[in-house]
Amino acid sequence: MPSGRRARVAEGTSLLEAARQMGVEIESICGGRLTCGKCKVRVEEGHFPKHGIESRADHLTPPGQEELDLLERMGARGARLSCSAYVCGDVLSFVPEESRAQKQIIRKSATERAIEVVPAVRQVYVEVDRAVLGEHRGDWGRLQDALAEQWQLTELSIDLQALQRLQTALRQGNWAVTVTLWHDREVIDVQPGYQEGAYGLAVDIGSTTLAAYLCDLRTGELLATESAMNPQVAYGEDLMSRISYAMMHKDGLAKMHKAVIDALNKLAAQAARAAGIRTRQIYEAVFVGNTTMIHIFLGINPVELGGAPFALANRDSMDFKARDLGLRLHPGANVHVLPAEAGHVGADNVGVLIAEEPYRQEEEIVLIVDVGTNAEIVLGNSRWLYSASSPTGPAFEGAQIRYGMRAAPGAIERVRIDPATKEPRFRVIGEERWSDEWDLRPDAPTESQPKHLAAGICGSGIIEAIAEMYLSGIILPDGRFNPACRGERFRWEGRKGAYVLARAEESAMGEEILVTHEDVRNIQLAKAALYAGAKLLMMRAGVEKVDRVTLAGAFGSYIDPLHAMVLGLIPDCELSKVHAVGNAAGDGARIALLNRRKRLEAMEVAHTIRYIETAVDPDFQEQFVGAIHLPHATDPYPHLEGILPEGGTTEAQARARPRRRSRRRQKQPTPA
Amino acid sequence: MPSGRRARVAEGTSLLEAARQMGVEIESICGGRLTCGKCKVRVEEGHFPKHGIESRADHLTPPGQEELDLLERMGARGARLSCSAYVCGDVLSFVPEESRAQKQIIRKSATERAIEVVPAVRQVYVEVDRAVLGEHRGDWGRLQDALAEQWQLTELSIDLQALQRLQTALRQGNWAVTVTLWHDREVIDVQPGYQEGAYGLAVDIGSTTLAAYLCDLRTGELLATESAMNPQVAYGEDLMSRISYAMMHKDGLAKMHKAVIDALNKLAAQAARAAGIRTRQIYEAVFVGNTTMIHIFLGINPVELGGAPFALANRDSMDFKARDLGLRLHPGANVHVLPAEAGHVGADNVGVLIAEEPYRQEEEIVLIVDVGTNAEIVLGNSRWLYSASSPTGPAFEGAQIRYGMRAAPGAIERVRIDPATKEPRFRVIGEERWSDEWDLRPDAPTESQPKHLAAGICGSGIIEAIAEMYLSGIILPDGRFNPACRGERFRWEGRKGAYVLARAEESAMGEEILVTHEDVRNIQLAKAALYAGAKLLMMRAGVEKVDRVTLAGAFGSYIDPLHAMVLGLIPDCELSKVHAVGNAAGDGARIALLNRRKRLEAMEVAHTIRYIETAVDPDFQEQFVGAIHLPHATDPYPHLEGILPEGGTTEAQARARPRRRSRRRQKQPTPA
Repeated sequence: MPSGRRARVAEGTSLLEAARQMGVEIESICGGRLTCGKCKVRVEEGHFPKHGIESRADHLTPPGQEELDLLERMGARGARLSCSAYVCGDVLSFVPEESRAQKQIIRKSATERAIEVVPAVRQVYVEVDRAVLGEHRGDWGRLQDALAEQWQLTELSIDLQALQRLQTALRQGNWAVTVTLWHDREVIDVQPGYQEGAYGLAVDIGSTTLAAYLCDLRTGELLATESAMNPQVAYGEDLMSRISYAMMHKDGLAKMHKAVIDALNKLAAQAARAAGIRTRQIYEAVFVGNTTMIHIFLGINPVELGGAPFALANRDSMDFKARDLGLRLHPGANVHVLPAEAGHVGADNVGVLIAEEPYRQEEEIVLIVDVGTNAEIVLGNSRWLYSASSPTGPAFEGAQIRYGMRAAPGAIERVRIDPATKEPRFRVIGEERWSDEWDLRPDAPTESQPKHLAAGICGSGIIEAIAEMYLSGIILPDGRFNPACRGERFRWEGRKGAYVLARAEESAMGEEILVTHEDVRNIQLAKAALYAGAKLLMMRAGVEKVDRVTLAGAFGSYIDPLHAMVLGLIPDCELSKVHAVGNAAGDGARIALLNRRKRLEAMEVAHTIRYIETAVDPDFQEQFVGAIHLPHATDPYPHLEGILPEGGTTEAQARARPRRRSRRRQKQPTPA
Repeated sequence: MPSGRRARVAEGTSLLEAARQMGVEIESICGGRLTCGKCKVRVEEGHFPKHGIESRADHLTPPGQEELDLLERMGARGARLSCSAYVCGDVLSFVPEESRAQKQIIRKSATERAIEVVPAVRQVYVEVDRAVLGEHRGDWGRLQDALAEQWQLTELSIDLQALQRLQTALRQGNWAVTVTLWHDREVIDVQPGYQEGAYGLAVDIGSTTLAAYLCDLRTGELLATESAMNPQVAYGEDLMSRISYAMMHKDGLAKMHKAVIDALNKLAAQAARAAGIRTRQIYEAVFVGNTTMIHIFLGINPVELGGAPFALANRDSMDFKARDLGLRLHPGANVHVLPAEAGHVGADNVGVLIAEEPYRQEEEIVLIVDVGTNAEIVLGNSRWLYSASSPTGPAFEGAQIRYGMRAAPGAIERVRIDPATKEPRFRVIGEERWSDEWDLRPDAPTESQPKHLAAGICGSGIIEAIAEMYLSGIILPDGRFNPACRGERFRWEGRKGAYVLARAEESAMGEEILVTHEDVRNIQLAKAALYAGAKLLMMRAGVEKVDRVTLAGAFGSYIDPLHAMVLGLIPDCELSKVHAVGNAAGDGARIALLNRRKRLEAMEVAHTIRYIETAVDPDFQEQFVGAIHLPHATDPYPHLEGILPEGGTTEAQARARPRRRSRRRQKQPTPA
């Protein structure tokens, strides 16, 4: 139990072996030496007619003192260790979740998925022949022989760092050691005696943010999540300016490489501290990131990614020694980098793919949008997959927005506007109450005052603000402020309007927080680029509509699906089928860290997905022009019927839009 | 020609391909692109009845301008490039030595041997598809495809350092690059365009001396030989004291490791300078050394080698990245360490084995003695091989000798003593004339004065001195000074005599250079240990005599065979079959560097040779006692008949030797 498998085994077979024969893998690190206790099972007693057996505790050999002691220490009195209980009659046994070798973790995703825990790193306990005079195998030879005999591990190599520690470990452990293996082919650590604890780090190197996930490689458990600014922002906000920096400065690459490595070392140390482990217990790290970030991370000049034909140094997945990159994890630790798809679609998008698995979607056509400075877009299902990269620019991340800021305490993240009064209310990060519930009187009790005043507007905030401004008639479908809007919430400079989202007393700076004409323009351009990319893939795939939309990206998970669709960020779709899944790229890294088979899947999908180059596609330009409107000049949004303001999207309006502005804007979407 | 092979080939076959079909490998780096010129051949014209052909130049397609220009630049007018000459009639062609792919180098050894040059590192020129928009293989993918197509190289990996340089190299070389490969499986360098020059370093890490040999990996040519003191001598003269240092000091290993790595970096730089190449053109280094030296070199604590059971960290050959050891060669360079045989017989002796190849000796039984602070002894032939290590101590290297010194200018290296007058003459390193031809008068013309006065006695000098003292009756077979010897050449202190080898005016220090009673004793102990080791192997193998003796070791090559035998350093053997072969361990490293197949041979012999532990063998102690005498208390030396002084070796004398001295001395031969 609980699998319900049954079989007839020879008398004297251990429960562990019996389970194995039935295809049930029970965990065992010590290999039956009564040190790890991982193979614990519960023996059910009684009459089980369904199984046709009469199970009794004495149908197993009785536990010895050593087993009883270990079970006592583990707080598992009454259980048995399956390695030490030998079958001598009918037995019904329950294998608890924690004893199962093939562990699973459940990932929250658009469609919940279970991930099997089969990492590249594992630890085994092994007893090694003592060195004796006249026998010359050497300690490594003896260890190899023991690993072959006790764990069927052959053709192993050993990392120099592990070899340097081998002799001491063998003697300290009295010729018993715990060996840490990578892909069952390289010994990367040898520790004296029985040891437990192999951890891994999954990292998403974003242009702006570094996110690190520390996992237990045995259980798959996520122990710590840490993030930090990518210090490379000092060398340029977006990818193109980083590439320029590498081109223009002789030591530009070296500086940016060092900056990110230093930051990653700090992040790893932070995560280890948070999880209460040592950095040197991190035996593997898996990295995703856009192609430019991965190039710089690996010390490869990203200059080729700055211009056509956007040649990658390497598309495929790669493994290196962490130390060769200057990373301070375990000295023998390896680094795995997921493959890329093309010059503009990197390992981060492959991470999204293996996390969301659109290639397992039988019928429905999925659109996945990873929103960031560069948006990666995937469209397809199990039959075909397309991807593209769209240069949205940093507006969604709060840059190019007058009061834009990162998603930090005080950032406006939710906005509602009353269509009748045009009065807004908003919520800031770190404060649960909406702004209309704030008591701002100086003599108000502390608990009714907001914990944070408004400090600016983050990405999800600006999207909601503009969508709400549109829904309430403050801005017109072409993005202009409605000239009819006047009053204390509005500021006008000639024909350019601005909307007061937060009053001076609501703001931390003591000044009004505005959404300006230019802010609206920048968001329009960004969303048009994103939409045009999605539309281009739909054209190439020959589909008219999508069945499901997944919004990915750390920021994407905060976007409200309705507002995204009102803005025309994504094409029309049933609202219940629009999901935000958070940092799917980071999740992909974590999945590849925990499941080595997903690395092969990553290679496969990276090779089979069809990448569409937006930069040179005339259809992209065409779609971009049409998508400047809210939500679109011509494409219908039946699922927004009754939600959009009247006359929201008409062909007449589209025709009314002056052509030359769209031409001027065509310069915008160059790849970066 | 000159192989004399002939074959019928299809018209239009290139000479290069035709030769290949006949099993004659002609060198080609550029693969037929008229850049390397390595495939040059000479076409013979005329009637060749033996081959039954009528060869004429116009039986080949005529050379194009590009070929003519390259031949002109190479100073090879009149030759043809076999890649560009296509057969259209009978052709007799001569392949010069330098164009043959399977180059050979001849090594001076006891039996001259040819070494085929098939190194682990090779360079190939390759033309790579340009990156084009819409094609996403990545530069490394494109390079892999090109290497597979043009050179049939598949399943390659690339070193991070090479990947970092790949994109620049491809563009600088206009999509043609020279790729440096290790074992045809790892790309360790990519350089723009056509490049030549891959070098390797073979190093013997001796306890006292580091010897480095810089070789051209294409031709096998030895370009530079450099040597230096092992700076670890500051931490102890012999192995045991280094092991103690590592045990007693927390940072002992780190200090000694750093010392040898720093010295090796200097040595590599020196060798590169001497050969006129850059250190970063050294793509591989092969190391030999005794087990303690190899442990420290690899950063492994040698403490286990200091006591039974003398466990090695690893017996087998190993490959590591040079950078992981702190070696500054090419950043992607690899290091190969030859295997060891046992705790006391290391890679240096395996080097001797693959250089001297006793396992190819069909009938004769060979004894190989590698003389050093620890002597390694090998006995056998193609049917069986035994090895042992014998703790000779540093006497042979000039230590423990009152006027001992290293083999440097001024060191006495040759000695002759007149049996009648007991007058010596000697020769010092750096001066060709014997001391009796020196004109020491202050007013003598410069050219008749010796360039160096005597500064001390080196290893070969002390062996000759003591052998000559014995032959001339100055010392007795048991090592005591003959009490009858009096006069100006003798100094007596009680019953301990001393012999004036160089007079004060012949010495650089202005004082007499003596050979003392203690010097004789120390050499006796050293030679007895060596002899006992050899004898032990003979006993184990069940042989009475050896057919051939090879003296190895940098110092071994200066030992005169006659004197070595008079002293009883080696068992009796026909004098013409005693050879000194120099630093065979270093030669072995060089051979393994140039011929990767010899590395497999090294592994094979390291596993099959039978190692005899002298330290714990009672027979060794027994043999040691008997061998204190000159040349031996009981073993006969028929080949020295008429050479040894009368009554040189009698059983009576052996019995006369006090037993307790030999017992006291038994403490000496502990392993170190």
